Amino acid sequence: MTVSIKPAFRNCLLPLQPYVPGSSTEEVAGRYAPIRISKMGSNENPLGPGPKAMEAVRNLAASLSVYPDASAGDLRAALAAAAGKKPGNFFVGNGSDEVLLLIAATYLNPGDQVLVGTHTFFNYEFVARVFDGEVHTIPTRDLRYDLPAFSAAADARTKLIFLCNPNNPTGLYFTHTDLAGFLYSLPRNVLVVVDEAYGEYADAEDFPDTAALMEDFPNLVAVRTFSKAYGLAGLRVGYAMASETIVKDLRQVKMPFNVNLPAQKAALAALGDAEHLERTLGLNGEGKRSLTRELEKLGCEVLPSQGNFLCFQPPGSAAAICEYLFRQGVIVRPLNRFGLDRWIRVTVGTQNQNSHFLEALSAFFSA
Amino acid sequence: MTVSIKPAFRNCLLPLQPYVPGSSTEEVAGRYAPIRISKMGSNENPLGPGPKAMEAVRNLAASLSVYPDASAGDLRAALAAAAGKKPGNFFVGNGSDEVLLLIAATYLNPGDQVLVGTHTFFNYEFVARVFDGEVHTIPTRDLRYDLPAFSAAADARTKLIFLCNPNNPTGLYFTHTDLAGFLYSLPRNVLVVVDEAYGEYADAEDFPDTAALMEDFPNLVAVRTFSKAYGLAGLRVGYAMASETIVKDLRQVKMPFNVNLPAQKAALAALGDAEHLERTLGLNGEGKRSLTRELEKLGCEVLPSQGNFLCFQPPGSAAAICEYLFRQGVIVRPLNRFGLDRWIRVTVGTQNQNSHFLEALSAFFSA
Repeated sequence: MTVSIKPAFRNCLLPLQPYVPGSSTEEVAGRYAPIRISKMGSNENPLGPGPKAMEAVRNLAASLSVYPDASAGDLRAALAAAAGKKPGNFFVGNGSDEVLLLIAATYLNPGDQVLVGTHTFFNYEFVARVFDGEVHTIPTRDLRYDLPAFSAAADARTKLIFLCNPNNPTGLYFTHTDLAGFLYSLPRNVLVVVDEAYGEYADAEDFPDTAALMEDFPNLVAVRTFSKAYGLAGLRVGYAMASETIVKDLRQVKMPFNVNLPAQKAALAALGDAEHLERTLGLNGEGKRSLTRELEKLGCEVLPSQGNFLCFQPPGSAAAICEYLFRQGVIVRPLNRFGLDRWIRVTVGTQNQNSHFLEALSAFFSA
Repeated sequence: MTVSIKPAFRNCLLPLQPYVPGSSTEEVAGRYAPIRISKMGSNENPLGPGPKAMEAVRNLAASLSVYPDASAGDLRAALAAAAGKKPGNFFVGNGSDEVLLLIAATYLNPGDQVLVGTHTFFNYEFVARVFDGEVHTIPTRDLRYDLPAFSAAADARTKLIFLCNPNNPTGLYFTHTDLAGFLYSLPRNVLVVVDEAYGEYADAEDFPDTAALMEDFPNLVAVRTFSKAYGLAGLRVGYAMASETIVKDLRQVKMPFNVNLPAQKAALAALGDAEHLERTLGLNGEGKRSLTRELEKLGCEVLPSQGNFLCFQPPGSAAAICEYLFRQGVIVRPLNRFGLDRWIRVTVGTQNQNSHFLEALSAFFSA
């Protein structure tokens, strides 16, 4: 007889797969001891944090003993000013991960239906399961979100729909018109959450203007992050832009001090550092073009990307190539856990990192 | 007809009261513009963060663009070494707030019973409601936890019991023998969560040794924080010490990067700064004794406290006294929201802060 020494793990959590983050520098250094490491597996900003954000964090050390602003008031005011909205349209969390969790906490009852896509960020399904939602996974078409299939699957039990745009890990996107048509097709009591973690990098003219769309569709929530273009992945600051009604709901469910002091201060400073953002986007655009060209020369299929990464299918085993790249100190992201066994995701790096990656990949093919 | 523009707020969340944190310096400065402010309402460390923690935060600025260690490995190893346990006995969260939320997320199904006390920290009931638990509130006896009443109330539907020791806001505690007897009386599949946020300050010889008790009672979880004695409230680092089985469960439900880089680095540095902790405890002990003596001289009833604060009942209206103290720039915590309308909680401060508080209080009584 087994004696129970704790309560049972909740049944709804049993399907959860442990999330495996991109490999860290320490992990690869320890396993392969390469001469040089280029970390291109986690879509971090290769330029690092901006000078204003670093300065903000250095200056706050003496204030660490005081609780942070529970409302993240200064940061929300700055986000509002930048977007032409009100502070009441913004909700800040401990990374967009927490924002997504709290959206589910606020609206999802056990058995409510949640729609997610295949080949996307793990967290949408994760947060749905934490609140015992019934997860329906809508297959992609040619690796793209099949929005008409989402519409067709939505019924009276559907509470939340999670979309990632541009999508991680493919970099593909749906347009403003696609999203408007999709929103028009749905009942207004279905919440459509569009995760725009890579939205700052998107330069397609028809990329959705979610700030404008939510004026007509108040059931639209856009989620963004300071972890990517703003270079603050180490701080965990994400936010939702939504109707004041939704933000008010979310604020009732959050813990009082969910975003810590360095996170609030550095995000505020980063928002005011237009120069660092410009350098970041410039470097990314150039790198994306040259990496695409070189990958295609090596016989890879490369998806057009609106993010700070490329998703490519090499001729030959993606697993073998990833293993080789890791040994050479190039950390990329194998996409088997995203259901894309033959694809690899690489973050657009600095020129040096991009060269390191391309040299290692060429060496693999000529070996 | 009202047109719904969002999903309905969950029914189980409707009883949630908005949490009102202790007033901030900015808030009091803006409302009363006093000459001087002593922030004694949030039980922060009046000495501030220690020098090692500050140094750690200043030194990490350039690394902010990289995701933090998902496992908080260094911090957990240091916690384990300090407690004579294994890293697998520790789970770190975004403040103990998140640790408590994740305990509920891991084990609490809708309708499961949760036992909490009256006159205690708000968060135990909060996390239970987020997971639609049935909250039973057990009244205190003479302001102390009535552990036999908790035992009597526990039944087959009871999943979690939350206790705070020493209790916030009273400072009262239950002993090692009390807790051992209580654990002995319960089925082992009831999780007993003892929040020891102020545990480092406790100097009573019979204060529970939870690290030892959990060897015999694996359903015991101790929760601690770096926000109080370690002076890092601005960073939000809390942790659970528990059986490896429970920690493994919790890790499956947490978001990958729940504790940010400054939080991990500063907490690690603070753990290694014995000198700052010693100064903190020394200042607190002296301040507690002198404040108690002076408060009693002014005719107040003062509860014996094992924390870094005193809970006292003044002769006269607590609300009027709090209002007067705020005007004089002394931020204390009125306890009406804890169901203790006639009591006030004051953080033990520096000698200057304590004098500021006592002078203002004396002035009120002699007016």
